Amino acid sequence: MKNFFPEVRQVIRYEGADSKNPLAFKYYDADRIVGGKTMKEQLNFSLAYWHTLKGTGADIFGAGTYKRPWLQNNDPMKDAEDTVYAAFEFISKLGIPYYCFHDRDIAPEGETFAESCKNLEKIVAIAKKLQGETGTRLLWGTANLFSHPRYTHGGGTNPDAMTFAWACAQVKNAMDATLTLGGENYLFWGGREGYETLLNTNYGREQDQLARFLHMAVDYKKKIGFKGLFMLEPKPHEPSAHQYDFDSATVLGFLRKYDLLDYFRLNIEANHATLAGHTFEHELTVATADGKLGSVDANIGNPQLGWDTDQFPTNLYDAIKAMMVILKSGGFTNGGLNFDAKPRRGSTDTIDLFHAHIGAMDTFARGLLIADKIISDGELDSFVKERYSTFDSGFGADIMKGKSSFDILEKIVLENGEPDMKSGRQEMLENLINQYI
Amino acid sequence: MKNFFPEVRQVIRYEGADSKNPLAFKYYDADRIVGGKTMKEQLNFSLAYWHTLKGTGADIFGAGTYKRPWLQNNDPMKDAEDTVYAAFEFISKLGIPYYCFHDRDIAPEGETFAESCKNLEKIVAIAKKLQGETGTRLLWGTANLFSHPRYTHGGGTNPDAMTFAWACAQVKNAMDATLTLGGENYLFWGGREGYETLLNTNYGREQDQLARFLHMAVDYKKKIGFKGLFMLEPKPHEPSAHQYDFDSATVLGFLRKYDLLDYFRLNIEANHATLAGHTFEHELTVATADGKLGSVDANIGNPQLGWDTDQFPTNLYDAIKAMMVILKSGGFTNGGLNFDAKPRRGSTDTIDLFHAHIGAMDTFARGLLIADKIISDGELDSFVKERYSTFDSGFGADIMKGKSSFDILEKIVLENGEPDMKSGRQEMLENLINQYI
Amino acid sequence: MKNFFPEVRQVIRYEGADSKNPLAFKYYDADRIVGGKTMKEQLNFSLAYWHTLKGTGADIFGAGTYKRPWLQNNDPMKDAEDTVYAAFEFISKLGIPYYCFHDRDIAPEGETFAESCKNLEKIVAIAKKLQGETGTRLLWGTANLFSHPRYTHGGGTNPDAMTFAWACAQVKNAMDATLTLGGENYLFWGGREGYETLLNTNYGREQDQLARFLHMAVDYKKKIGFKGLFMLEPKPHEPSAHQYDFDSATVLGFLRKYDLLDYFRLNIEANHATLAGHTFEHELTVATADGKLGSVDANIGNPQLGWDTDQFPTNLYDAIKAMMVILKSGGFTNGGLNFDAKPRRGSTDTIDLFHAHIGAMDTFARGLLIADKIISDGELDSFVKERYSTFDSGFGADIMKGKSSFDILEKIVLENGEPDMKSGRQEMLENLINQYI
Amino acid sequence: MKNFFPEVRQVIRYEGADSKNPLAFKYYDADRIVGGKTMKEQLNFSLAYWHTLKGTGADIFGAGTYKRPWLQNNDPMKDAEDTVYAAFEFISKLGIPYYCFHDRDIAPEGETFAESCKNLEKIVAIAKKLQGETGTRLLWGTANLFSHPRYTHGGGTNPDAMTFAWACAQVKNAMDATLTLGGENYLFWGGREGYETLLNTNYGREQDQLARFLHMAVDYKKKIGFKGLFMLEPKPHEPSAHQYDFDSATVLGFLRKYDLLDYFRLNIEANHATLAGHTFEHELTVATADGKLGSVDANIGNPQLGWDTDQFPTNLYDAIKAMMVILKSGGFTNGGLNFDAKPRRGSTDTIDLFHAHIGAMDTFARGLLIADKIISDGELDSFVKERYSTFDSGFGADIMKGKSSFDILEKIVLENGEPDMKSGRQEMLENLINQYI
Repeated sequence: MKNFFPEVRQVIRYEGADSKNPLAFKYYDADRIVGGKTMKEQLNFSLAYWHTLKGTGADIFGAGTYKRPWLQNNDPMKDAEDTVYAAFEFISKLGIPYYCFHDRDIAPEGETFAESCKNLEKIVAIAKKLQGETGTRLLWGTANLFSHPRYTHGGGTNPDAMTFAWACAQVKNAMDATLTLGGENYLFWGGREGYETLLNTNYGREQDQLARFLHMAVDYKKKIGFKGLFMLEPKPHEPSAHQYDFDSATVLGFLRKYDLLDYFRLNIEANHATLAGHTFEHELTVATADGKLGSVDANIGNPQLGWDTDQFPTNLYDAIKAMMVILKSGGFTNGGLNFDAKPRRGSTDTIDLFHAHIGAMDTFARGLLIADKIISDGELDSFVKERYSTFDSGFGADIMKGKSSFDILEKIVLENGEPDMKSGRQEMLENLINQYI
Repeated sequence: MKNFFPEVRQVIRYEGADSKNPLAFKYYDADRIVGGKTMKEQLNFSLAYWHTLKGTGADIFGAGTYKRPWLQNNDPMKDAEDTVYAAFEFISKLGIPYYCFHDRDIAPEGETFAESCKNLEKIVAIAKKLQGETGTRLLWGTANLFSHPRYTHGGGTNPDAMTFAWACAQVKNAMDATLTLGGENYLFWGGREGYETLLNTNYGREQDQLARFLHMAVDYKKKIGFKGLFMLEPKPHEPSAHQYDFDSATVLGFLRKYDLLDYFRLNIEANHATLAGHTFEHELTVATADGKLGSVDANIGNPQLGWDTDQFPTNLYDAIKAMMVILKSGGFTNGGLNFDAKPRRGSTDTIDLFHAHIGAMDTFARGLLIADKIISDGELDSFVKERYSTFDSGFGADIMKGKSSFDILEKIVLENGEPDMKSGRQEMLENLINQYI
Repeated sequence: MKNFFPEVRQVIRYEGADSKNPLAFKYYDADRIVGGKTMKEQLNFSLAYWHTLKGTGADIFGAGTYKRPWLQNNDPMKDAEDTVYAAFEFISKLGIPYYCFHDRDIAPEGETFAESCKNLEKIVAIAKKLQGETGTRLLWGTANLFSHPRYTHGGGTNPDAMTFAWACAQVKNAMDATLTLGGENYLFWGGREGYETLLNTNYGREQDQLARFLHMAVDYKKKIGFKGLFMLEPKPHEPSAHQYDFDSATVLGFLRKYDLLDYFRLNIEANHATLAGHTFEHELTVATADGKLGSVDANIGNPQLGWDTDQFPTNLYDAIKAMMVILKSGGFTNGGLNFDAKPRRGSTDTIDLFHAHIGAMDTFARGLLIADKIISDGELDSFVKERYSTFDSGFGADIMKGKSSFDILEKIVLENGEPDMKSGRQEMLENLINQYI
Repeated sequence: MKNFFPEVRQVIRYEGADSKNPLAFKYYDADRIVGGKTMKEQLNFSLAYWHTLKGTGADIFGAGTYKRPWLQNNDPMKDAEDTVYAAFEFISKLGIPYYCFHDRDIAPEGETFAESCKNLEKIVAIAKKLQGETGTRLLWGTANLFSHPRYTHGGGTNPDAMTFAWACAQVKNAMDATLTLGGENYLFWGGREGYETLLNTNYGREQDQLARFLHMAVDYKKKIGFKGLFMLEPKPHEPSAHQYDFDSATVLGFLRKYDLLDYFRLNIEANHATLAGHTFEHELTVATADGKLGSVDANIGNPQLGWDTDQFPTNLYDAIKAMMVILKSGGFTNGGLNFDAKPRRGSTDTIDLFHAHIGAMDTFARGLLIADKIISDGELDSFVKERYSTFDSGFGADIMKGKSSFDILEKIVLENGEPDMKSGRQEMLENLINQYI
């Protein structure tokens, strides 16, 4: 069996915060108990097959810069086989428990739809074997409905019914693959489900189509007995000029409108949050407020740039705040932290993949430790609880129980006069976070 | 009676496109029939009391620059009286059929809540008289829950129950005023209904509070028999770092979640759309797709700037596209085009108010004429209809009727092979719009 | 000889504003005299070889969607030959007087540098022949120092001296090709001349390197007797996270610092302007204020998107304002309007290339007509001239002549008191522009 | 003497990282030696008079929320006197060595220019006395040329010569005040030196005016013997739609063009950097690359918002990177870290001012400690040095010495072939920074 990462001969180990070894974990100690579970269980790290294995370093102005040893066969299926072995070698060397894929990442498109399906089945069989050998699990599978030219005007929202049918057929087979591999979730990201210009678009009709598409997916899920969760992944734009799944609030509104809320959770990506004008923490908060946080694409964008840079997450503030929201919502059930991130185009070596994942895993491990400590200490939460305490009793509680009215409240105002001004103490709370770092 | 605009001695008249008179309409011909109604009825122009009458030219870095003759009494109530006369003089000279106000625009805050209410009643009585004399109508009224320090942390979402009560009491009286003046609509814009930092915020609780606040408003509306529509106005941020009514899709989702959808429509502001990362046309389209377009704040932002510049709308493309969406949705029922816009700080003279309104009215009048022509000619709509035609019959129609499945569609794919690629013709359609200008 | 555009059998003609023929010019009437020159001479339209001929419709999330008949040989040099014939056929059918290219657009990279040079020479010979046959001219040539992986960390700013040498060698040959083809200008666009992260970057050193690179280009220009102009093209980022040629002001500052100002002008791209936080008009104004406007990449971005969308320009406001700046600076000398623009990914047909160019040419033709009328009428310019008139005589003139001082001016202030406030009349002037459309 | 901050009875002390006391320093230990100087000398913290003393919590949508005890006299001059005492009390309690002011912060505008000057002189005398008593020093003074309506269209770039004269007279007196108080620097921030619309603007003329204005300031500086530095402060926009001092590169280019480079350095503000599309680190790097870093306005913006939020800096990454640039450039000479920052509008209490300053001082103290450690350890700098090493000898060195040419380098390419690809190791370097936190 080939060894695709000979430069890393053994499994990456935890060596503690004082280690100077760039190829060791300083904070991620998989079996350490934090907040009642192991770090491994709290974080559920996952490898993103497309970026880590299939990324080439290409960008819109230049060709690929990475020369991956598993992509040198001049034969797509041989490359696909090498790649799946490389994936599990990499996963094992890092000790990552999960991975995620699109159908076309793991197996190439064939000449016909039938051939594409066969390609997929063949690689799925190898992946299943390797999952068994390594104990690795599938966090989610999905269908790539954005790369092939046929999906230029969308998959589930394509104005052409035949292309819509292709999207359905492709999702059907990707769901079958996910079921076969015991996937925890099945994901929908609609990169082409949107519009380029409203001039040629019937917006309401495309929304209806998308709902029909997702309802058929729900029907099929029931038919095949897939027990995993369905997830939608918000993104505001790119590649489309406008994407229908703009942000968490938009997606939740869509699900409510079309009676789909019971069947879906959200997969929140940090970089998509910032492209939509939100913080990562905000999008997580919106999802958890509705009990709909499914999973997370853990990465970071460049605030100076207006596109999805999908960088590996190394910002402690983001990781702390994200883990606070996640822990307070009860932690992940089916979801995890999937590294939907790619090394920079100039980080051309396979060793850069190790640096990138180690840094990201340590960042979130540290984020978990700090978030857990902030929550345990309780100072921050007490402040917030106290802030809303006037709604816990008296006329405040009546308001929340639906037992008040404008007339009642006007009387209270007339009797009591101007309310007291209370400081929100933002600066003090920001300092508090820094004290934990 | 004072004459506050002596520099414009008579009503602004329509003189046609060739007029060189800057103080004449070139396109707005109020009684001309376009699309089955008069221009006046199609456009329902409205003056924004706060900017046009109360605007001072102040910005965050500098003091007011306008010296309005109606604000020189050194007595807030005398100023308020002068202002209402100035407003109706201005409205009459321009031939604008509607106006909009916040309670605190038309009457000053008093020492006590009771005094504030009395101030409001007094000015409302004058406004009612002047409405009668001039035939002007109230498009909507609203309560200012953002300027006074007590609302720093929100009105309906304030963590303090007493402040929440103030918000309710204030809205109650603003609704009474709107009823008295025969307002077509009552508006909610939540500039402080959001958060500065999630560190001190219970997001879910504030959402629940906001829903309670709005439900009580609905109850009160029923109680007093107000027949106008309720409207929410989306804005993503400013003044708050995040506002809950981020954009149309977010607001519609919120209304669905909290069973408020039947009671509200949206007031779409162009500059708020662009701050949220959308086009004006997009936000109008989202609202109309749900049958929820209430009214429009017609202005324009500066695409280079990240705050609400509220400029007078002079961009024909925006006006054409907006009027196309509005006309295709059946035109305004209770709503109109309210000029939530202010002259630049350096446009210091009252004559600049005339230039600004005349230009904006002509822009939308021209937008209406062109939009009506494009719709009548039908070329654009035919293109779009044809684009979706495969869903009008056969397996496409079955999909939309809910009579299809992934299995059925996979069979169709296997039998038919690759779909045809069809151009979206964006460039041709953009050229088409230019041909109408 | 092949006919690559059989769907357009004859040269596109001017049919006037009332024509409904989408494949006719409504405003571009090449020989009409406007502002003392023909439209053709005022506008100097140019085809962008890379987008129009070599564009595939690929984006970062998906494969190419166009199937161009000139790119079907499975042999890069045969494709290159077909492409040059297709280019001149297209140019001729549209009546475009100029074209622009990167070395690697017109001829493929070979196995060795020497082979790349031979490929280039071969195609240049064909292009020269076709220029002669059609009367088409080369607006500018340039070297592609961004697509090949070797330039990942830059060309002239690469930290590796050998890669720097490659950049120099490649530019040398591209300059030779440009000289051979009688190019009016030679262009530098530094897509990789910037940084991804300051952590691994010596900023000052890279600036010095870039200056050395450009000085050697100047030396070589003199050596070979190239009489055309050199141009730098500002862009703030993309592909690099930060590009050194951020905007016009930055580039002019760099040229001054390194004694290069005499040798360079600017090539201003509309979409690069907006990505840098400026308007197109602003960047043109900055360039002309220093007498340094060389040429223009005429396109438009999507204000909702944070990357270079390179759309065909169809916005009349942009075109009018651009042409006003250009006409007032005396019009183009060596430069022109190059359509650095691509049809949308979904505009998949060759006919879309015609729609796109026709619409863009008409937009700028109309912009020229309106700009010329506004300038001739003189109302706008008179307003501006009057606004600064206090500097034309008296103590104002002394200030501008360098004959004043703080002491003198303080005395004037003490004697005269508060200055008068004068309105800037922005709204009136915006209305004025609309009157010309 | 009044005690304006009774809630903080003694000087804030250093208690170390484990302290839980929110009103103690955890990292700022003024006399600790770091990088060869005391922390106090390395950081040169400065209080911003306008925000800390004169800030009211007002924003564009709402009135002030702070009730400062020193602003309750209903008499501008009495307020001004109280304020200067409050300032020095606050400075002393925090142990901040410097402060900065605008003329109109410390003393109110009078009825006439002469009265304004007298007001200023009177307060300057008190400030001078208090400086002597407390050992506090003036980092810089400046003139407010943006708040008064007369400067609506600019100060040094005003189209009206009389207003230009006012700007000069006001700067003259502000320079006199700065000289009297022994200011280290005199600052120019041109909030109104820009344009709202190019339609009414002669851009080139305004640039010339600005240069004349600054040359007269240089003349006056020489005349009065002011030995401090002059500084310009870049900002891209706000309040103006476009400001001429857009960013560091633009300002340096302007200074070069108008022969002003010898007389000016830059005052870099973090939030202005991000508004211009740059990082704070970038702007500092550009300034230091030209030896022109003067001083720093230490704050932070909100990346989700498009205006200057001027928040207190609590982000460690920003502080570390800033201190690395500053230390490597040799540290501050005349400059320092001025907290041009304001508590949020909802942070209404004077105690919030303490939280805000303590957190910011600790953030930069920690940034200094970490930056110093990274530099001392040398790993990062060695990586960068090695990266450029091919330019230190051989043909690379010849390039930098100006001894090479395109011909020479082409030969080297032909002889050597393709360069090696070297990874930029961005992820490894980002991990390295995290290891120091």
